Amino acid sequence: MTDLTLAAARTIVEKALAHAHAAKFKPLGVVVVDARGLVRAAEVEDGSAFLRFDIAHGKAFGCVSVGVGGRTLQKFATERPHFTTALGGLTRDRMTPVPGGVLIRDQAGALVGAVGISGDTSDNDELAAIAGIEAAGFKADTGA
Amino acid sequence: MTDLTLAAARTIVEKALAHAHAAKFKPLGVVVVDARGLVRAAEVEDGSAFLRFDIAHGKAFGCVSVGVGGRTLQKFATERPHFTTALGGLTRDRMTPVPGGVLIRDQAGALVGAVGISGDTSDNDELAAIAGIEAAGFKADTGA
Amino acid sequence: MTDLTLAAARTIVEKALAHAHAAKFKPLGVVVVDARGLVRAAEVEDGSAFLRFDIAHGKAFGCVSVGVGGRTLQKFATERPHFTTALGGLTRDRMTPVPGGVLIRDQAGALVGAVGISGDTSDNDELAAIAGIEAAGFKADTGA
Amino acid sequence: MTDLTLAAARTIVEKALAHAHAAKFKPLGVVVVDARGLVRAAEVEDGSAFLRFDIAHGKAFGCVSVGVGGRTLQKFATERPHFTTALGGLTRDRMTPVPGGVLIRDQAGALVGAVGISGDTSDNDELAAIAGIEAAGFKADTGA
Repeated sequence: MTDLTLAAARTIVEKALAHAHAAKFKPLGVVVVDARGLVRAAEVEDGSAFLRFDIAHGKAFGCVSVGVGGRTLQKFATERPHFTTALGGLTRDRMTPVPGGVLIRDQAGALVGAVGISGDTSDNDELAAIAGIEAAGFKADTGA
Repeated sequence: MTDLTLAAARTIVEKALAHAHAAKFKPLGVVVVDARGLVRAAEVEDGSAFLRFDIAHGKAFGCVSVGVGGRTLQKFATERPHFTTALGGLTRDRMTPVPGGVLIRDQAGALVGAVGISGDTSDNDELAAIAGIEAAGFKADTGA
Repeated sequence: MTDLTLAAARTIVEKALAHAHAAKFKPLGVVVVDARGLVRAAEVEDGSAFLRFDIAHGKAFGCVSVGVGGRTLQKFATERPHFTTALGGLTRDRMTPVPGGVLIRDQAGALVGAVGISGDTSDNDELAAIAGIEAAGFKADTGA
Repeated sequence: MTDLTLAAARTIVEKALAHAHAAKFKPLGVVVVDARGLVRAAEVEDGSAFLRFDIAHGKAFGCVSVGVGGRTLQKFATERPHFTTALGGLTRDRMTPVPGGVLIRDQAGALVGAVGISGDTSDNDELAAIAGIEAAGFKADTGA
């Protein structure tokens, strides 16, 4: 377990949004949590629906709590929906098991935290998350 | 209801933390929500306990959900604790009824959102929130 | 209802982990509850995600609360998902209805408690639970 | 934030119970969580009521989530009960704000986790927690 600094979390948010703007994505919500599930930095763009933060948060929190990327959570959901329902309850309804939740790992592979992004397609949300994580010098684990 | 832009929310976070650093406060969590209760910007400083975001969020969310500042919520709590207990349930346990939650109002008095800060004393948390709100060109309503 | 001693619960944890280490399983969380659902012994290995205890606990607690092994809970979930959803609510979201939750029975078949293990595949989790239960002189009821 | 190993968590449980037995305390529940709030080791002695684990867990989880020892949580509760009620909700009712919850710090003061003990008087519960923490080479922070 590696500490995530606020400075690094800020860089991830900034670079994820820069990627989204360059690619002309829809308005996004971006949430960065550390290995404890604590929100360290978050921004939600103008024009977002009022659940946007919670959806993005659930992607990040779900990934870091189970220790897998959002694509693995989605695979669980399609293969064993009752397990995913249970995980939803165990996280006190704070899990969004779809792509766009991406684990942050250091170069040695240790867990640092997770990013959750929501607002465009799940695939595009994930691309923005990867861009932010890599720009901050970490490795992105999407669960693919 | 006046729109809160992400740009304004960022300024509030930045200036609240600048005030805290100048005054040598402890590490803070800062959460800015708009008039719908949506988190627009948040940062939690290094060295924070893992409930810090939730405590700060509960200050902001509680204020904007009831439409009063944190000092009014605390007054409710001491004068009519059963009402505060009910408000806690009605917000699904997302209310922290103490100072450090401050409403953001525009110069005409319209509700724009709220800031919640946690980490130092409640009085100092509130001072940082006021500094951020005013630096962004809004009026701070502490409920005092 | 037969009493489960702490000494027996410790043996179950120790022998389940010994089996897992010999079989080179991933890091596990192991939770032993008695017939009342009370946690009597638990250990979570280094390198575990932070929901690991809750997932393992939900396997043990779910089994002992309904009185069936994890494979039966999973069968319920696939055949009558609405019943499983109800059980999730009735246990206050403390049920993980998949294999790896195994009832502990004495040699006469009386209920003694349950073991929940999580971290590797559900099948491997279950093998470790059986190993622990049998090493402590009890019979394992997986619900198969 | 320093990692807590299972080996260290086991030592804390063992030495806390050794202290309790030497001092002839009543049957105890002992729960050790890491800096993320994850249960790493727990034991509940024979003759315990069925809420014993949850009470002990709430002491440990409450301390580590807020970042203060149990005596500070108790002080919050007597001075500002509405704040404590809010913390209860924010932790999803997983906080027991009384002595017997003790932070584990390394020799440099960094947060490693927390111990929660319940079963005898709160003062005696706390003594057992301190004994376990110190025997494992850490510093105990009771919040006094």
